[in-house]
Amino acid sequence: MSTQTFLVRGMTCGHCVSSVTEEITEVPGVLSVNVDLVADGDSVVTVESGDGVDEALIRAAVDEAGYALVG
Amino acid sequence: MSTQTFLVRGMTCGHCVSSVTEEITEVPGVLSVNVDLVADGDSVVTVESGDGVDEALIRAAVDEAGYALVG
Repeated sequence: MSTQTFLVRGMTCGHCVSSVTEEITEVPGVLSVNVDLVADGDSVVTVESGDGVDEALIRAAVDEAGYALVG
Repeated sequence: MSTQTFLVRGMTCGHCVSSVTEEITEVPGVLSVNVDLVADGDSVVTVESGDGVDEALIRAAVDEAGYALVG
């Protein structure tokens, strides 16, 4: 089991959390997604997968939801 | 044509605007809804209808979307 964390900027509410969670959940290999919302800063997104997911795929999923990965 | 304005607290992003717009649009008699988002305060919701809509119906719609009418 692999746990990765990412910072996502621009999320402000539960709708944003739903959008990001939905997109990341669709990435192959992702088993679960947890978002700690920081409405006025960078939210912490924790992704569990079997053996890690390419950051580029997470970045694309976050972008698809309308937000940006920090860094 | 009647134009009414309401203040809605707690909306933070475009998803919130969509939710509130969708719920208010479903109120009988409502012809159009416009939201000026004030993310850290009270957003201004303007409702156009034929001859006015009961505020209680707007309040219920906003509540259904998960937000509160101010006042």
